[in-house]
Amino acid sequence: MANEQLEQLRKQLDGVNDQLVELIAQRGKIAQEIGKVKASQGLNRFDPVRERKMLDEIAEKNEGPFETSTLQHIFKEIFKASLELQEDDHSKALLV
Amino acid sequence: MANEQLEQLRKQLDGVNDQLVELIAQRGKIAQEIGKVKASQGLNRFDPVRERKMLDEIAEKNEGPFETSTLQHIFKEIFKASLELQEDDHSKALLV
Repeated sequence: MANEQLEQLRKQLDGVNDQLVELIAQRGKIAQEIGKVKASQGLNRFDPVRERKMLDEIAEKNEGPFETSTLQHIFKEIFKASLELQEDDHSKALLV
Repeated sequence: MANEQLEQLRKQLDGVNDQLVELIAQRGKIAQEIGKVKASQGLNRFDPVRERKMLDEIAEKNEGPFETSTLQHIFKEIFKASLELQEDDHSKALLV
């Protein structure tokens, strides 16, 4: 009985993982578009004010179970990865 | 024009952030349930084989733009946070 329950919960978790993979990819693509627009305007890709604003909004939306600091830490990793993605695109653009 | 485009893209990004906050919370709640079932069975909360399997599935589902290693790194942070959540619940349960 408990094993069935565990199996059921793991299936749910796998489903959420799949959705997270898709959503993070979607976010990466939008970040790439933003990087392109910024590059065309000669703007700096890293914008600490915008990042702070996003972290504040995440804090506001958080209803648990994770601590806000934990959630923000996860998002900071996503921000960092997005910035690296924009930098890669920029390096490639310079090589063209 | 470019500013409007940037504004539009940022709105899209904020929308994805909101969905991520919800989905990560949903994942946290499922992980808590799994922690409870495991505790009731005397099972160890950390299961490296299961974690490896999830990381392999994430690699399989990844269609970019992020490198698989980057995506797995983000997920490892989520796994770590989920485990801490289960440990907190366990500590609280011991105090009851």
